[in-house]
Amino acid sequence: MNKLHCFKESGNSYKVALALSLAGMEWQKVDVDYFGGETRSAAWRAAVNEQGEVPVLEIDSRKMTQSGAILMYLSEQVPQFALNKEERDEVLRWVLFDNHKFTANLASYRWLRTFASPTPEEAILAFLRGRTEGALAILEKHLEHQSFVVGRRLTVADLSLAGYVFYPEDELGFDFTQDYPSIAAWMSRIAANVGWLPPYELLK
Amino acid sequence: MNKLHCFKESGNSYKVALALSLAGMEWQKVDVDYFGGETRSAAWRAAVNEQGEVPVLEIDSRKMTQSGAILMYLSEQVPQFALNKEERDEVLRWVLFDNHKFTANLASYRWLRTFASPTPEEAILAFLRGRTEGALAILEKHLEHQSFVVGRRLTVADLSLAGYVFYPEDELGFDFTQDYPSIAAWMSRIAANVGWLPPYELLK
Repeated sequence: MNKLHCFKESGNSYKVALALSLAGMEWQKVDVDYFGGETRSAAWRAAVNEQGEVPVLEIDSRKMTQSGAILMYLSEQVPQFALNKEERDEVLRWVLFDNHKFTANLASYRWLRTFASPTPEEAILAFLRGRTEGALAILEKHLEHQSFVVGRRLTVADLSLAGYVFYPEDELGFDFTQDYPSIAAWMSRIAANVGWLPPYELLK
Repeated sequence: MNKLHCFKESGNSYKVALALSLAGMEWQKVDVDYFGGETRSAAWRAAVNEQGEVPVLEIDSRKMTQSGAILMYLSEQVPQFALNKEERDEVLRWVLFDNHKFTANLASYRWLRTFASPTPEEAILAFLRGRTEGALAILEKHLEHQSFVVGRRLTVADLSLAGYVFYPEDELGFDFTQDYPSIAAWMSRIAANVGWLPPYELLK
């Protein structure tokens, strides 16, 4: 049985859970006590992931980490996510954009405004919000003329970029329907897939 | 002739330039006026890269972007960077760690403290420095018992993680020799490769 080490507030975990769920794969949740400091403990890092992060997916007798690497791996294992060589390069390009620019800023901004204690200074939030808006604008423009991020069907690039957008808008601080209509339409197309659930239901 | 759209202060460009140089491949530099706003202009984004970033590598009649995607591509094209399946998964894992946690913070911190005008508030710099120290600690620990990031020889994972560490210490705000000795030793091993040059010489 595949095991996913995760916690429900982690959109990076949700990316992988969503891929497994859309693929109809069985998996078991292993709860990680992020808020209690588990991922920062030396014991957890030695036993589970030296990079100190979830998700960790136990699959095919291996422990895999980094949602982007896991998603690329699943694109090789799961027929519905299969990519040809050209698609693969393009999907990886968007997975990397997601990791270093999109999720990097959107997730940090959400985290600090919603979960951090004490709430950080306004200057930090404003800085991250500005960066997040820059990344959202690039995705919005990209989706103005296409239904999915790469090609004409859902790929793991969509699942990577969708890791955080389905969390409640009051956590994120963005109203996609109003300000990013192409992103909102793309979210509806993703949510229409069999197996889709919002993060707090899928990872509950 | 391969063309690399870049500017010399961009460590993400340096990652790709270093791979090309170590591989002994010919390439031509295409200067991008980042400081004049070129990557933020609609014209440049439409013509060169909708994601608004360098590096962009013109190779094999394609325009490739995202240093991590380019490095993975080069690992398939260049015999000295070739990876077996297991190594490839692990290299991608570290390239993703680099993109979302290591370079993401180290590069932002360097940028804001050295190049941003006006200099941002101290709270923002302190926030990014803290995140950078967390990422540096993970790499330092990883390199305590191994010479390179994956396996026993240099891979593109090393080149990705090395994108910013060779910039001058007064730009970075870190003294690796004193505070991160395993990273400093790893840097020496990378710098010992034929074709290696520091960023301001390779991208001058």
